[in-house]
Amino acid sequence: MSNQTVTPSRPHVVIIGGGFGGLHAAKGLKNASVCITLIDQRNYHLFQPLLYQVATAELEPNNIAFPIRKIFQKQHNCDVVLGKVTSIDLEDKCVQVDGGKIEYDYLIVATGARQSYFGHDEYRTLAPGLKSIDDALEIRRRVLLAFEEAEWEEDAASRQAKLTFVIVGGGPTGMELAGAITELATKTLPADFHNIDTRQARVILIQGAPRLVPPMPEDLATRAHRVLEKLGVEIRLNTLVTNVTEESVEIGEEKIFAQNIFWAAGVQGQTVCKTLDVESDRAGRVVVQQDLSIPNYPKVFVVGDAAAATDALTGSPVPGVAQGAIQTGDFVAKIILNDLKGAVPKDRPAFTYYDKGSMAMVGHGNAIAAIGKVHLGGFLGWLAWNVVHAMFLVGFGNKLVVLCEWFWDYMWHTRQSRLITGDPEVSIKTLRHKRVSEDKHHTA
Amino acid sequence: MSNQTVTPSRPHVVIIGGGFGGLHAAKGLKNASVCITLIDQRNYHLFQPLLYQVATAELEPNNIAFPIRKIFQKQHNCDVVLGKVTSIDLEDKCVQVDGGKIEYDYLIVATGARQSYFGHDEYRTLAPGLKSIDDALEIRRRVLLAFEEAEWEEDAASRQAKLTFVIVGGGPTGMELAGAITELATKTLPADFHNIDTRQARVILIQGAPRLVPPMPEDLATRAHRVLEKLGVEIRLNTLVTNVTEESVEIGEEKIFAQNIFWAAGVQGQTVCKTLDVESDRAGRVVVQQDLSIPNYPKVFVVGDAAAATDALTGSPVPGVAQGAIQTGDFVAKIILNDLKGAVPKDRPAFTYYDKGSMAMVGHGNAIAAIGKVHLGGFLGWLAWNVVHAMFLVGFGNKLVVLCEWFWDYMWHTRQSRLITGDPEVSIKTLRHKRVSEDKHHTA
Repeated sequence: MSNQTVTPSRPHVVIIGGGFGGLHAAKGLKNASVCITLIDQRNYHLFQPLLYQVATAELEPNNIAFPIRKIFQKQHNCDVVLGKVTSIDLEDKCVQVDGGKIEYDYLIVATGARQSYFGHDEYRTLAPGLKSIDDALEIRRRVLLAFEEAEWEEDAASRQAKLTFVIVGGGPTGMELAGAITELATKTLPADFHNIDTRQARVILIQGAPRLVPPMPEDLATRAHRVLEKLGVEIRLNTLVTNVTEESVEIGEEKIFAQNIFWAAGVQGQTVCKTLDVESDRAGRVVVQQDLSIPNYPKVFVVGDAAAATDALTGSPVPGVAQGAIQTGDFVAKIILNDLKGAVPKDRPAFTYYDKGSMAMVGHGNAIAAIGKVHLGGFLGWLAWNVVHAMFLVGFGNKLVVLCEWFWDYMWHTRQSRLITGDPEVSIKTLRHKRVSEDKHHTA
Repeated sequence: MSNQTVTPSRPHVVIIGGGFGGLHAAKGLKNASVCITLIDQRNYHLFQPLLYQVATAELEPNNIAFPIRKIFQKQHNCDVVLGKVTSIDLEDKCVQVDGGKIEYDYLIVATGARQSYFGHDEYRTLAPGLKSIDDALEIRRRVLLAFEEAEWEEDAASRQAKLTFVIVGGGPTGMELAGAITELATKTLPADFHNIDTRQARVILIQGAPRLVPPMPEDLATRAHRVLEKLGVEIRLNTLVTNVTEESVEIGEEKIFAQNIFWAAGVQGQTVCKTLDVESDRAGRVVVQQDLSIPNYPKVFVVGDAAAATDALTGSPVPGVAQGAIQTGDFVAKIILNDLKGAVPKDRPAFTYYDKGSMAMVGHGNAIAAIGKVHLGGFLGWLAWNVVHAMFLVGFGNKLVVLCEWFWDYMWHTRQSRLITGDPEVSIKTLRHKRVSEDKHHTA
């Protein structure tokens, strides 16, 4: 039985989601006289910015994820529930989890975002996104299988389609994925395939906006664009995808034959947030007030990617990045601490976002980073990227292993995680057995 | 196009399977004037003896697997095909792979073994075995979910069933799995669960024979038995499972309520071997001749676990362990090399097995090892086990990482790989929300 049972006078804080927002909210209430229940569908906290490296066989899932229970091992006011919240009942102050309901005094919704296909949910299986470990392993499977199938494909056009990778979305994730797949094809794999030249793989990055990584400064975007083109990535700006099929991506009249299509183009709120029945923005994120609570419910907050929050000073939207989640999570914990001390909701401060900068990996030993007025690119940017990303990984072991992997890959272009898991389902239309047929005549 | 196309006079050696048998056969033909095609359903070589550590969250799949292509990167006479061989045609000298056929001059069948349920294939989903990475991840998922569900299960009997782990089979794998799950429950997890005492988990090891690990010396088996019992494992010797259901294991009249049942009780040959249409033993392994070829087909060999081979000196069966596969693979490569030099099949030597010893992990810092006449147990056995198992891992990186993990776990009982992947599908019948209901009355 839990400690909390014997001290029922403490308010119950329920947090939905163990991403950065949820973790920081819970951590911020570490010494508060509350009972916390953190609910997540997964038993781990995931560092999403490194998912693309799991997708491209550089890292393993456990390198970028950490068991939530272990994080709260010593925080005895926090219980962890593995489960999916299916609805939130604001009147009865409870959430429905598969198998039961959990009542709350305070609720913090930190459910994050999922991939948006802009109304074309039928693209989901054709062009997987990159939001979870399962997504990343699916992309990895497809990328590695593409080369395996191309190795034995006799038909030149089919072979080229198998070796064509289209990435939809030119934000940080799309750019990083394009760079990493190019590196895989040109540096890691060539020696492993004896029948094809893996360097003939085409990597096409499709971006709707007039430039790459719009949230980042223009000079860095230009720099990244140049580096990616030099690596061999074909970049299409101002380009909108009009259709996705099993074998191609259509851009108006043009049809690009590609067996590998990945989606990194947009995000939307989780379905459960709809049960809050409050205003949300076009992407389904909950429009919150200046104190991050929702109208009429001062004890219900939404943080991180699930919220459409605004910086009270600048009026600009809080970006959907790790820092946004961390800062909103920290903020809500402080609000609750103040409440417990007797503060009244109307005196709550307004949330302001502190921009610590942004960065994105471009390719081997090359990244862009904007930290305040300092803009870094190339190797310096890469160093900054490595340090900052390792810093935010939870767990000393993870930091160490990941830094070693990066160093190793930087030196030798190796990829430690090239396993195709799940059913390989190879679909080689024509096996090139010409060679073998020739051999037949020469049996010893 | 491959190099082999221009030198069609070289005989074509087709190897089915990239386990120890297949790898050693291919490596043994490194400098031979042959074309080799190695076919495997997976793109990696797997070190099966460590699968139980993937199942118990100690290691990640990539630690014990290695891309086959990378192994043959520099062996230019060896091509790799990712695919499933569906049949072997001895008359036409070809194998059917999904999507095409591959002709051979020499064929080496190294398909390994799969779990045998002794005619009860309906147990397969209820009680997963431990033969592949997917198996290991499924067992890991079930073990970790069991504790998650128990944490919130109000009903005492259901809770105990969720915390009961039955392992069928007291060979090395079953014993190692039982020891590792016990360690997880008693050392790694207790601090992470605030509502249950994970040390109350029951681990039951069911063995049909009169003692554990029958292939190993009796004194070591007795020693392992004692250590396991001290750790808390309940061992049932001379016990046969009569039925397996979703919630229980039946042993005659007795019914053990358990939500977690794992199968480590027997092996059988792969289905494809049946298409060889030659004699096989009770377990479906191909009965081979003294030179490991099959009757009437001197250029078709079966090695490793797929074969029922006999030591020509002692007449005893070659054990289904890594050494058996390695030695039979090496042997067949030498036979082929001799053939190429003009030797005739009737002069071929007979295979003899050199027993290098056997070992099995018992528990934390404790293993048994029989190396010739030397019998080791306890910490010394553990050291021997670690050194030998790391030695056989392919890849320097893997050896290093795995040794670090083992040291880390030995010191701090941590498990780096506690992620539940795939759909968690939690099924908590009754969520314990008593505590939460109490809190309700005390809302601030």
